Amino acid sequence: MPSPPPIALLTDFGQNDWFVGVMKAVIAGIAPEAPIIDITHGITPGDISSAAFVLAAAREYFPAETVFCCVVDPGVGTDRRILCVEDGRYVYVAPDNGLLSMVMGDNPIRATQGQSGSDRLRVHSAEERKFWLPAPGRTFHGRDIFAPIAAHLSNGHRPSEFGPAITDPKITPAVMNSISADQSTITGTIIYIDGFGNLITSIQFDRVVAEHTRTRPDNWRIELKDHSIAFALSYGSAPRGELIFYSGSTGLIEIAVNMGNAARLTDSHVGDAVRLLLE
Amino acid sequence: MPSPPPIALLTDFGQNDWFVGVMKAVIAGIAPEAPIIDITHGITPGDISSAAFVLAAAREYFPAETVFCCVVDPGVGTDRRILCVEDGRYVYVAPDNGLLSMVMGDNPIRATQGQSGSDRLRVHSAEERKFWLPAPGRTFHGRDIFAPIAAHLSNGHRPSEFGPAITDPKITPAVMNSISADQSTITGTIIYIDGFGNLITSIQFDRVVAEHTRTRPDNWRIELKDHSIAFALSYGSAPRGELIFYSGSTGLIEIAVNMGNAARLTDSHVGDAVRLLLE
Amino acid sequence: MPSPPPIALLTDFGQNDWFVGVMKAVIAGIAPEAPIIDITHGITPGDISSAAFVLAAAREYFPAETVFCCVVDPGVGTDRRILCVEDGRYVYVAPDNGLLSMVMGDNPIRATQGQSGSDRLRVHSAEERKFWLPAPGRTFHGRDIFAPIAAHLSNGHRPSEFGPAITDPKITPAVMNSISADQSTITGTIIYIDGFGNLITSIQFDRVVAEHTRTRPDNWRIELKDHSIAFALSYGSAPRGELIFYSGSTGLIEIAVNMGNAARLTDSHVGDAVRLLLE
Repeated sequence: MPSPPPIALLTDFGQNDWFVGVMKAVIAGIAPEAPIIDITHGITPGDISSAAFVLAAAREYFPAETVFCCVVDPGVGTDRRILCVEDGRYVYVAPDNGLLSMVMGDNPIRATQGQSGSDRLRVHSAEERKFWLPAPGRTFHGRDIFAPIAAHLSNGHRPSEFGPAITDPKITPAVMNSISADQSTITGTIIYIDGFGNLITSIQFDRVVAEHTRTRPDNWRIELKDHSIAFALSYGSAPRGELIFYSGSTGLIEIAVNMGNAARLTDSHVGDAVRLLLE
Repeated sequence: MPSPPPIALLTDFGQNDWFVGVMKAVIAGIAPEAPIIDITHGITPGDISSAAFVLAAAREYFPAETVFCCVVDPGVGTDRRILCVEDGRYVYVAPDNGLLSMVMGDNPIRATQGQSGSDRLRVHSAEERKFWLPAPGRTFHGRDIFAPIAAHLSNGHRPSEFGPAITDPKITPAVMNSISADQSTITGTIIYIDGFGNLITSIQFDRVVAEHTRTRPDNWRIELKDHSIAFALSYGSAPRGELIFYSGSTGLIEIAVNMGNAARLTDSHVGDAVRLLLE
Repeated sequence: MPSPPPIALLTDFGQNDWFVGVMKAVIAGIAPEAPIIDITHGITPGDISSAAFVLAAAREYFPAETVFCCVVDPGVGTDRRILCVEDGRYVYVAPDNGLLSMVMGDNPIRATQGQSGSDRLRVHSAEERKFWLPAPGRTFHGRDIFAPIAAHLSNGHRPSEFGPAITDPKITPAVMNSISADQSTITGTIIYIDGFGNLITSIQFDRVVAEHTRTRPDNWRIELKDHSIAFALSYGSAPRGELIFYSGSTGLIEIAVNMGNAARLTDSHVGDAVRLLLE
């Protein structure tokens, strides 16, 4: 008998309380053989857009049939819906607050990723209480609703069993880049800052390479605040302490400093503008 | 063959060193099929009462037979005993320093929880060295004693095999609330602050509702320092930035601020008094 | 069928992004039955020598055949090699940057540990791309190269299948202690500071006891900056707040303060000198 598919957890619960442990306990009671993989529990509390990005960055590396259980849910206990989604390759359970935007809508990660099966997207509102813990409270649906649903999904129940199909899930529009009239400059945004302080931008490296063939990355510059930043292949190919930009592991352009913290060095935050000068 | 019962880990070791990893390595050598679930390793170093509370908040959600391996142990290497406890549903191994107080004594969590089997409590002093690693040191009993005992418990050994029964384990008395003579005010204490900054009090919501039927929660107020705080059903039902109190996921009254950190906003700490005004 | 050997992960990726989760996802796709044990992901970014020490402190407690997958890799994307090593008991995959120094060279941990099989050491350069993910990028070899290699090793592939044998891996020399001419003083170094603030020195306790039999530890003192520190058996045997030294869980002499943080109290850092006065 093959193992059940993994359950991947993504929350803003941190790791210093019992919240994640109890979700795993609930899963162990319902689907004891299901492997559990933590994507992260370190999302800034309530930061739905970071959670959406992290899910988009991580998911394609998971085995088919993985159940993604995502709980960044500042509206817990209100009448926001809970979504149960399948896309032909994976299944998801998450609050209906935009967390699954990059699953159901535009995905900033490079085009060869993540677009699989969007025509086979099925979205349900998980209202069927028989899959919840009895008498769920209003403040810890991770334990009382999301974890048991994820465990039942891993056990083979289909999203359609959890509630009615819906057509209006909340989808937050992707950050848009703009291109100057003379095609010399692309203006994007910092959309995520990782634990090393690397700045992940909204600009897809391969797409720019494909569409702007007059110049090559070695000649490009990134402008961020007062900094003018050159291209490098990887961190170690730049002098220690120097800012570089490069094609990051998600396919998006990132800014880093070799053996340093680019966010701190440049005092950058999510939402700050970056300008890619192509010539 | 069914899986062995899970081993749940609760320590103050943090996650930045090798301590937790090595406990899991020792378990993997003795009970390779036992699932391991981290409750948390983020207890403040030496904070026994927080560990006791976290265990009480988490345990009922674990499957029957779970082995709880709890190591917050500032007395490691002294002659403090090590306890091996069964309560009819779970087994526990922990230092004899009060960490199991809510397993063996009063439990502040709501009465429908946690009281199961207290009449079937069996407490042993784990002195039988054949279950320890050879030549244990004096500073890392998590690795040398607690982890191997937990693994042998998961393998089916009973607590009575690990040493003699004792009747005098250390039990720290629960925090007591006081009720004013006219029954209009309950004075309790902040007993835990979670990673969101939510303040968990010693006052059981359902019990107050049952015993004080003249008024309803919508009319109650909590006083904390200079703040007078109203009731809400959940975080999201209050305006952003406003303090609320509510029935938390453990059944205790909690104080939070929608999309904010109540501990920081009110400069509160464990042990601070809260007053619930019932009319 | 027995379980495949565990895969032990040691990185500086932190736990707030998706990096560790994606490594586990890749492993789950290739070796779904392999248990994964996190040693830690909290190494200070780029701190190769701390990673080398943590590996040396942890590894002997892992079951035979464990695959150690170690990624502290500031040179990712440059032409640094990737090592695949076996030592007769364990296998390892790590960048060729000194991280495996204590596996392949001198090990400061006590002599009864870690020396097993060094004559059976086999070192290979992992160049065989068929074991990598397709089209690996230049910035996340943990996901694209190290994780798949570790999974294939757990599946039973031997290090020699991953690339040619090499004889010149990078080995960083161990920190050397010095002994005064009259044998009264051993000068060592702080080589690691753990999450409790305990200071781990380069001096092996048992070796000093064996070689300096004129005096006993009760009469020794450690000098650290302005502090003169006495011996204790364990934290709890000293008064609260007092600095002590003792034989730590790795066999090395450590300095701690009962219920406190020695690193903060003494403002100590890795590399600071300590002097052990033997009489």
